[in-house]
Amino acid sequence: MINVGIVGGSGYTGAELLRLLASHPDVKVVVATSRSYADVKIDGVYPNLSGILDICFSALDLSQLQQCDVVFFTTPHGVSQTLAPKLLNSGVKVIDLSADFRIRDIAVWERWYGLEHRAPELIPRAVYGLPEFNDERIREADLIACPGCYPTSIQLGLLPLLRCQYLDTRDIIVNASSGVSGAGRAASLANIYTEVGDNYKAYAADGHRHFPEVVQALKDISGRSVGVTFVPHLLPINRGIHATIFVNLTDLDLKLHDLYTTAFVDKPFVSILPLGDHPQTRNVRGSNFCQIGLHRPLGGRKAIILVVIDNLIKGASGQAIQCMNLMFDLPETSGLTSIACVP
Amino acid sequence: MINVGIVGGSGYTGAELLRLLASHPDVKVVVATSRSYADVKIDGVYPNLSGILDICFSALDLSQLQQCDVVFFTTPHGVSQTLAPKLLNSGVKVIDLSADFRIRDIAVWERWYGLEHRAPELIPRAVYGLPEFNDERIREADLIACPGCYPTSIQLGLLPLLRCQYLDTRDIIVNASSGVSGAGRAASLANIYTEVGDNYKAYAADGHRHFPEVVQALKDISGRSVGVTFVPHLLPINRGIHATIFVNLTDLDLKLHDLYTTAFVDKPFVSILPLGDHPQTRNVRGSNFCQIGLHRPLGGRKAIILVVIDNLIKGASGQAIQCMNLMFDLPETSGLTSIACVP
Amino acid sequence: MINVGIVGGSGYTGAELLRLLASHPDVKVVVATSRSYADVKIDGVYPNLSGILDICFSALDLSQLQQCDVVFFTTPHGVSQTLAPKLLNSGVKVIDLSADFRIRDIAVWERWYGLEHRAPELIPRAVYGLPEFNDERIREADLIACPGCYPTSIQLGLLPLLRCQYLDTRDIIVNASSGVSGAGRAASLANIYTEVGDNYKAYAADGHRHFPEVVQALKDISGRSVGVTFVPHLLPINRGIHATIFVNLTDLDLKLHDLYTTAFVDKPFVSILPLGDHPQTRNVRGSNFCQIGLHRPLGGRKAIILVVIDNLIKGASGQAIQCMNLMFDLPETSGLTSIACVP
Amino acid sequence: MINVGIVGGSGYTGAELLRLLASHPDVKVVVATSRSYADVKIDGVYPNLSGILDICFSALDLSQLQQCDVVFFTTPHGVSQTLAPKLLNSGVKVIDLSADFRIRDIAVWERWYGLEHRAPELIPRAVYGLPEFNDERIREADLIACPGCYPTSIQLGLLPLLRCQYLDTRDIIVNASSGVSGAGRAASLANIYTEVGDNYKAYAADGHRHFPEVVQALKDISGRSVGVTFVPHLLPINRGIHATIFVNLTDLDLKLHDLYTTAFVDKPFVSILPLGDHPQTRNVRGSNFCQIGLHRPLGGRKAIILVVIDNLIKGASGQAIQCMNLMFDLPETSGLTSIACVP
Repeated sequence: MINVGIVGGSGYTGAELLRLLASHPDVKVVVATSRSYADVKIDGVYPNLSGILDICFSALDLSQLQQCDVVFFTTPHGVSQTLAPKLLNSGVKVIDLSADFRIRDIAVWERWYGLEHRAPELIPRAVYGLPEFNDERIREADLIACPGCYPTSIQLGLLPLLRCQYLDTRDIIVNASSGVSGAGRAASLANIYTEVGDNYKAYAADGHRHFPEVVQALKDISGRSVGVTFVPHLLPINRGIHATIFVNLTDLDLKLHDLYTTAFVDKPFVSILPLGDHPQTRNVRGSNFCQIGLHRPLGGRKAIILVVIDNLIKGASGQAIQCMNLMFDLPETSGLTSIACVP
Repeated sequence: MINVGIVGGSGYTGAELLRLLASHPDVKVVVATSRSYADVKIDGVYPNLSGILDICFSALDLSQLQQCDVVFFTTPHGVSQTLAPKLLNSGVKVIDLSADFRIRDIAVWERWYGLEHRAPELIPRAVYGLPEFNDERIREADLIACPGCYPTSIQLGLLPLLRCQYLDTRDIIVNASSGVSGAGRAASLANIYTEVGDNYKAYAADGHRHFPEVVQALKDISGRSVGVTFVPHLLPINRGIHATIFVNLTDLDLKLHDLYTTAFVDKPFVSILPLGDHPQTRNVRGSNFCQIGLHRPLGGRKAIILVVIDNLIKGASGQAIQCMNLMFDLPETSGLTSIACVP
Repeated sequence: MINVGIVGGSGYTGAELLRLLASHPDVKVVVATSRSYADVKIDGVYPNLSGILDICFSALDLSQLQQCDVVFFTTPHGVSQTLAPKLLNSGVKVIDLSADFRIRDIAVWERWYGLEHRAPELIPRAVYGLPEFNDERIREADLIACPGCYPTSIQLGLLPLLRCQYLDTRDIIVNASSGVSGAGRAASLANIYTEVGDNYKAYAADGHRHFPEVVQALKDISGRSVGVTFVPHLLPINRGIHATIFVNLTDLDLKLHDLYTTAFVDKPFVSILPLGDHPQTRNVRGSNFCQIGLHRPLGGRKAIILVVIDNLIKGASGQAIQCMNLMFDLPETSGLTSIACVP
Repeated sequence: MINVGIVGGSGYTGAELLRLLASHPDVKVVVATSRSYADVKIDGVYPNLSGILDICFSALDLSQLQQCDVVFFTTPHGVSQTLAPKLLNSGVKVIDLSADFRIRDIAVWERWYGLEHRAPELIPRAVYGLPEFNDERIREADLIACPGCYPTSIQLGLLPLLRCQYLDTRDIIVNASSGVSGAGRAASLANIYTEVGDNYKAYAADGHRHFPEVVQALKDISGRSVGVTFVPHLLPINRGIHATIFVNLTDLDLKLHDLYTTAFVDKPFVSILPLGDHPQTRNVRGSNFCQIGLHRPLGGRKAIILVVIDNLIKGASGQAIQCMNLMFDLPETSGLTSIACVP
């Protein structure tokens, strides 16, 4: 059994880790820390886990974490960078769901996150945790920087095109929408039901923290410079990301659907929908799947790529477990086979 | 492997059976019929099942069903009563999720459902499929009448009190609310989003079809006559039932919480929440669990019992599988261990 | 023109006062205070008012309020009791939407609200602001205690029965559900979208602060002692209250529908629906109307009364304006004629 | 008083016309036809209008319509083209909310709508009813083709840029989302609550019927050829359209906010939000207002224009009344002053 620790376990991504790992055949959660809920039973905070997990959240205790095989961080930015060095030195693998190790250019990170980075020496060691792009490096890693939820959807939507020569990378437009759980579990006025329900809006149209991650990632995949416009929106739903990506193709004869089905043929969590179909967030809700629909209106050079993921699973906790599976040489889908409930 | 057939597989309860059985270790779905979608791939109708089930819906073919070990009916009332006799004669077990065999008094059934019953001779043979009440009889049965969704929640909420002497059974008030999936997957004006969203209402306050089932069931459990008032309401959510039950206790010293925890101690799908807690529909969404909260305002004779289930699972498809597990001597929880995603 | 001040104008009830008064023909809002938003333009906080109201919220300034004809308090409990004495002494009428002057028994108030009351001498002077019950006294009042939202719905639903002899007042059961705006505009974890959306639950089943107000009010109307059980629930909608009230009639021949239509014949904001109809929260959303449906299942002694109001309007700001209209001898419906948008 | 007739009055746009006209000071609705609800009281179908409108829907009677001053059509396409000629011949003005007279190129109309046009001779007579673009012609018209809901939002969002030289019209991307009422009030499986709730998806990415209208309109305004990509999405909300428009500017020094505030300075229903703000659908819900936010990430050539309207009001019935006001020389805002309720 792999002994797992979770730091920041009482947020939504922590809760999803707990839920998913509870049914993972090769894992035992030995500690889940929470400042707000130390010594409170986990199923007191998350009654959906009643009867499943019979432990309490605990205060952070480094020595306890150092006895784990792997520690997940589901913390706000700035936390994992202070603890990861000590855990790595103790031989503990670290899978970080926060933004701390995602951006290689420290100045960029510090500008967008407003903090001085405390462990810049670890950034080169961190492997970006998108298994569909990076699985070989993930298998060898001991420090994983899990992608953000929006960047996951965007990269999966563009991977096959970025790797070929038929995409004009200078003008990529991403219009994305997220359920409210993307904002975490925090008492914020902007996220109370009455500010979000029966409503829809864009936000951060002038610049979202996931923007520099997207730019870096698309460059890494394509090996070219990219021009990206990214506008996120807030949906009155609990979970789900839908990205509508507009790109210009440079070859009108490109067989887009073939390109995508081939690219993902051995990727267990990515489905390319039949031509003409539109993915729906509900069809991946609660699962680690990504579904992609492809459109070319009037057969022109503009391609529209529609991508859905569950922001808390493929966009966070599920993807982190997928990385863990690779790191510990387990089947990639272990513990991640649940299917969306519809409706 | 148990070979399973599903008649009426393209509705929501059919889809949930398909989803749940897809991960059941001892089951193989060999046929799922649908009039509307014959020869259409299942994951064309339910893309959440993409990559999970690679068969098509088919037109109804009795001989195919007769080769199954068990056939589930997720059909409107009036259908299973015409096919069940032939299947039973062929040695096929039948689990009926419709209302056809729930009511023992045929005249009552015919009045509420507006049809002449076509297989009245089978009614005494049908076993009411509430495992928490009836498990021994279910194990021996070959024809199961699965309870309605509202009646399931009401019976689970009242079981311990009905079996003791401390309940005044003459005045039981049930105020229940259901998500829209309770109305099935049908193009009805009353159920379009714009008639239900951002809205709440009671319906059928003068008499709902589940009323006679509730009365019969509460009498069966208590062995006494009962007086029940039942008002259902329509919630702007996809799935979930919440029943708020008001009863009068005859013994002010009754330890209500002890009574309930004892009664359900060996029932894997029923959780009694800590005193003072209120169950939430989301905590059982997508699962076969039932959660119950108990309240006695000011310590008086009025008890308030709060019950939540997922109407499509514990109120339909999950409970049907739970019955199947008992009938085939499998672990009661087989294929039913998934936990609600929160949020 | 009536010069109006609003204390606590940036909450939802304040915003609704501002919106409604903006189109009231006889009113000018001269000051709206807000601690959080002092000197911020009102339409910066509520862009729906863009182009309608061109003033800023301001810090509280007693002398400014003393120049108003009437001051509304849309503040948490404990605030109006400190300011009302000074305003009344200056000849300013006070309409209090908080709970400060609703309960006549100070000990009861202090127990439920956890504060020492600072102006007990004013309590006898306060007139309970339910115009359908109390209009003559409201016309003469200079201090109005506006009813809570739940109590408004319950009283309107029971008024005709409480005034006749055909109701058993000993066992009244109120199962009510409210939209989230009932909790105000505050950053509370319990009210973020992801805790409320796609979910339903009871809360405060052991005792809600509106309970003593309901008991007092029902006694006042009926002149008899009453036994009430009250369980509120939280709906995933922005606004609206639905009360389902279960009572026992003492006369089986009572013409319930006639009783109600007669009782409200001259009440412009209360509609009795045709027999068999069920009111819907959306049909009064955004309006000052109350709609009531009446049911007697199987013609028995149990009557079910279904009541809907908009909690922010008839349950708060609209009702407060209705009181103001009476106090200033204006038409009762002035400024309150807008109709619910459906859907 | 203007005598108004409405053909197809029982759909949502018909209901909104009825609601809005009920409080219009210069209008009397004399007839509202409905095939499904002939002889049914209007408030029996729309109880929100209880006490407001005391007439019944009626079967279509041409002679009755011919006595009106103006007739609104809120019918599916194909209906108004058969009746409009007779009404116009009788001197009745016609305001058509359907698509029948929107497209000048008959072949294009017939291809997208799959019908032979029955009154092609009237198309040149029809005036496109977008008052912010076309008010002078609307004043003189007797046949108005009201814009579609999406096209209204897109044109309002682009008007100032289309009229200047600083927009590259060759690559305009419109990513729009609509509430479900955009699909009308019809029993369609795709629109039942359980298919839409807690879900989000694009639809018609390969071509929506509003596409040719958008192309024609943008050409008309700009006098140039345009390249448009348009992808609509379905939101789990009742009403509201949000358009996110991506364009390339040809002049980096353009003062975008100034351009817009100047362009709409005398347009009572269009608000340009302060720089950096994001419009929200709820802030125009139930009103005839349009709110626009403007963004230029990193100050580059890409401009993002965010537009919200209520699809049933500014996108349909409100705009139709705005046209009527112009045609009858009434104040443009008559009957259209109601403000969105928030939350």
